[in-house]
Amino acid sequence: MNNQRTIFLTNDDSYLSKGFRHAVALASEFGHVIAIAPDRVQSGMSQAITINTPLFLRQVEHSENVEIYALSGTPVDCAKLAFDHFFAERKIDLVISGINHGSNAAVNVMYSGTMGAAIESSFYGVPSIGLSLDDHDADADFTGAVEYGRRIIAGVLAAADRLPRPLCLNVNVPRCAASEIKGIRLSRQTRGFWREDFYARQDPQGRDYFWLTGAFQNAEPDAEDTDEWALAHRYVSVVPVQVDMTDYRMLKSLDGLIK
Amino acid sequence: MNNQRTIFLTNDDSYLSKGFRHAVALASEFGHVIAIAPDRVQSGMSQAITINTPLFLRQVEHSENVEIYALSGTPVDCAKLAFDHFFAERKIDLVISGINHGSNAAVNVMYSGTMGAAIESSFYGVPSIGLSLDDHDADADFTGAVEYGRRIIAGVLAAADRLPRPLCLNVNVPRCAASEIKGIRLSRQTRGFWREDFYARQDPQGRDYFWLTGAFQNAEPDAEDTDEWALAHRYVSVVPVQVDMTDYRMLKSLDGLIK
Repeated sequence: MNNQRTIFLTNDDSYLSKGFRHAVALASEFGHVIAIAPDRVQSGMSQAITINTPLFLRQVEHSENVEIYALSGTPVDCAKLAFDHFFAERKIDLVISGINHGSNAAVNVMYSGTMGAAIESSFYGVPSIGLSLDDHDADADFTGAVEYGRRIIAGVLAAADRLPRPLCLNVNVPRCAASEIKGIRLSRQTRGFWREDFYARQDPQGRDYFWLTGAFQNAEPDAEDTDEWALAHRYVSVVPVQVDMTDYRMLKSLDGLIK
Repeated sequence: MNNQRTIFLTNDDSYLSKGFRHAVALASEFGHVIAIAPDRVQSGMSQAITINTPLFLRQVEHSENVEIYALSGTPVDCAKLAFDHFFAERKIDLVISGINHGSNAAVNVMYSGTMGAAIESSFYGVPSIGLSLDDHDADADFTGAVEYGRRIIAGVLAAADRLPRPLCLNVNVPRCAASEIKGIRLSRQTRGFWREDFYARQDPQGRDYFWLTGAFQNAEPDAEDTDEWALAHRYVSVVPVQVDMTDYRMLKSLDGLIK
């Protein structure tokens, strides 16, 4: 067993989600699984970290090849605690974050806790895959996500030695039967933003409240090299993610204007 | 008054922080101020959004030129509610997020709620400035941050018509007397990541807990074009921020490897 791989697993829908159970089964095909996942839903938590409160961890499952822990924190907390506390002496071969209920294509990469944890994990030099299905249903059909997830994991593991670090992939799987998926497309992040249409109502005490709801506005729906185009045309999109957010073109535009 | 500018203000340290009060006074020099800020500390909340609970808003201040509201949500919630609900019919000329207690240079841009709100606001086509002081003290001296913030705001407003959108600046001010600041440096985001050293203790009931603490590991401390170099040498750093996180070099490396 000494040569067996170790896979770190996390997500943002909590260890209780259906997508997480599928990720446990999928990851188990590739090695020993150690999961630290949020103990409650942490969707939309982005790269958030918990600074002002302590984090509690409890073991929820332990078999020969699978250890699952639930943490009272964000997805990024899970990744940081795993790598900086528990894995200091242990080599991790791969990180899987997901399988997420809902697409993290386009600018959703920034809001997603699942991608937050995948990005954070990649900072430790381990290939990290955020795997998401374009279906928010709690009982969604993950067959296609598992099938294509398996292919992508195998591809990453086979090529890992030849690829630079950090290595983080944002993988999104369309909502359709696995047999209808046309293949995998390496893509770039689609340009576009959400526009929200807040529910404005009153609570039983008569206080105004607002509830977030909205829709993604695709700024380039016809761009065939984007992840949204891939999903809309029943391809699995794979976008490699990096975290230098410097706007280099703006840097030139600003020259001489701010002084 | 019809020609007066309107400034949207938010932050992540809540409307009760000292830095926020300085931002209100500074913004008031440039126009009518409408602030929606978190009703409690939201540091480290990144680009997080609140999906599963409603948001409550209350007015906490209203004078001729300043309106302040407190929201029970994240910094990005504040920006979304402002632009998508309250400002649908109103032109906003500038967004200021801060003044943050603590630096948001380097990869901190990704964890910061203050920068999350600045980035989100820029999605609405309005020039957005995240303004941070490299001092976490609740009673920090904001003199230098106000003085240089004023210069940068004036520069952005004067050049706004000539600059593309989205326009978002991550401005960080060193912790020293205003007279010791050497000037402003347009910079790029420093490479490097945090490494955490979790406090591991037991609570009064004997349960293990973990508390996040760590240090930023600068991967390029001698790079004079980075924001960390600027801060370390008593310059104000200005990094323009964009949100296409595609790793274009990795996209080429992956060609043929994932299929």
